[in-house]
Amino acid sequence: MSILVVGSVALDSLETPFGKVSDTVGGSAVHFSAAASLFAPVQVVAVVGQDFPSEQLAFLERRGTDLSGIETVAGESFRWSGRYTHDLSLPETLETRLGVFADFHPRIPDGFRSPDLLFLGNIDPRLQLEVLDQVEGARLVACDTMNYWIEGSRDDLMRLLGRVDLLMANDGEIRQLAGQANLVTASRWVQEHGPSRVVVKKGEHGAILFHDEEIFFVPGYPLEDLNDPTGAGDSFAGGFLGYLHGSIDLSDGALRRASVFGSAMGSFAVEDFGVRRLARLTREDVADRVRELRHMTQFEIH
Amino acid sequence: MSILVVGSVALDSLETPFGKVSDTVGGSAVHFSAAASLFAPVQVVAVVGQDFPSEQLAFLERRGTDLSGIETVAGESFRWSGRYTHDLSLPETLETRLGVFADFHPRIPDGFRSPDLLFLGNIDPRLQLEVLDQVEGARLVACDTMNYWIEGSRDDLMRLLGRVDLLMANDGEIRQLAGQANLVTASRWVQEHGPSRVVVKKGEHGAILFHDEEIFFVPGYPLEDLNDPTGAGDSFAGGFLGYLHGSIDLSDGALRRASVFGSAMGSFAVEDFGVRRLARLTREDVADRVRELRHMTQFEIH
Repeated sequence: MSILVVGSVALDSLETPFGKVSDTVGGSAVHFSAAASLFAPVQVVAVVGQDFPSEQLAFLERRGTDLSGIETVAGESFRWSGRYTHDLSLPETLETRLGVFADFHPRIPDGFRSPDLLFLGNIDPRLQLEVLDQVEGARLVACDTMNYWIEGSRDDLMRLLGRVDLLMANDGEIRQLAGQANLVTASRWVQEHGPSRVVVKKGEHGAILFHDEEIFFVPGYPLEDLNDPTGAGDSFAGGFLGYLHGSIDLSDGALRRASVFGSAMGSFAVEDFGVRRLARLTREDVADRVRELRHMTQFEIH
Repeated sequence: MSILVVGSVALDSLETPFGKVSDTVGGSAVHFSAAASLFAPVQVVAVVGQDFPSEQLAFLERRGTDLSGIETVAGESFRWSGRYTHDLSLPETLETRLGVFADFHPRIPDGFRSPDLLFLGNIDPRLQLEVLDQVEGARLVACDTMNYWIEGSRDDLMRLLGRVDLLMANDGEIRQLAGQANLVTASRWVQEHGPSRVVVKKGEHGAILFHDEEIFFVPGYPLEDLNDPTGAGDSFAGGFLGYLHGSIDLSDGALRRASVFGSAMGSFAVEDFGVRRLARLTREDVADRVRELRHMTQFEIH
């Protein structure tokens, strides 16, 4: 029983007020796996070029991640470069070079076709649908998306939403998708159009889980040391599904805990550049942070 | 044993995407009292002009609020007019007419000089200091402030901070005051310069309570119906101190519950224009919302 993720594997060059890195491994599938692999066996489907420095993924293999679904094809790997100014919530994209990612069509290896949990990283919803056509039996299918697809591939995205159990996206994307400024109304709209569960990611403000009639808030962990926000959302998703892999059911309590694990993993991810922090993270670190988040949110009514 | 508030009593004219009102009663002392009076006897010190429609404060008197400290002097009442666009977090100020408020010096009546709890609304820190010189014995002194005083009256503000127990301000103000972009670092800085407790108000994202080494998060209640954000922060303060009035101590648990009552009152405040919602609110409404906030934040770790 494992977690399957399909998404991008990229080389990121980025600059924040706290430093600068070049050609560091990134992409939704990598950030997701860096988080989820701490809890569960992960299978990755993606594409890279012949230039890809695969030693940068060795930490994932050491954690039992199956990288055999990452195809290497002739050409250059997907590269993204961006810059964050003091408002760390949104990067300025300096350059996007799709490279071999431009012609990517996910091919799910035979051994990957019955995942326990499936995460469809932020790629073209048509490709996300192609994945769904190749797998069966997942307990939970979660997907991410972005403004580019909301604007340009709305019909495909709506078809996708009809076939997933959980949409994880940021607050701006949820509002844009629903055409509703109010976040509660917008999330309810998404629930009515497919997934019974929605996780609204709010960066430093944490996240809101909507499932059926329930609403659950998890704060962002209050960091004094934040270096690179890239991949926080995918790390959240990795923590969320990673936690659920060890959970028998998808009960209210399990989804709440999964959200807290997601928030914890998102907070670790941003402490260092790229996947550096997640690569050296232990389960004990996570357990400590989850306990801290619990202490920071619990209260009794007399 | 009562709560003393010193602040502004104003006539607000405002426009939001959801409607428009003219010369409706507002100001920090009014929003605070509208919330706190549901829980405790409140004493108000402020100034109004001869034009003030005092019948608009009748709902406070019915709840036992002592308005005898509101001086009426020759001249016009403080008037503010503002407009909110779709970003409801910040209004555009259209006009500020200080009127009689320009020469305000708070005179605390004899019967008001030993409050249980004291709230210094957002006014000139020199006036806030004048209030402190006239009272004694309060269990907790809380104050608010704003960018105008942080920029223009920094020395007075720092002297004030040395004499209060709690600063309640929004995230931008805390960052500006401390000269620190990181909210945790900024709040710790404030704690080192006076108040051992800081409440950082984050609008729809709720609030963070820092006290000694503790950090507690309370979310904003997820509203589908939000009409006028004016006064949300003062209503939060009113709920916070109102709750504490009934609490024997200022323990960790009590301050957490106070923060939740604050968040609940802030959320009610914005449901209707001016103080309309708080004026018709019952304690049962508040208890229900506090229970909901608890349900939305609690989780167990296995």
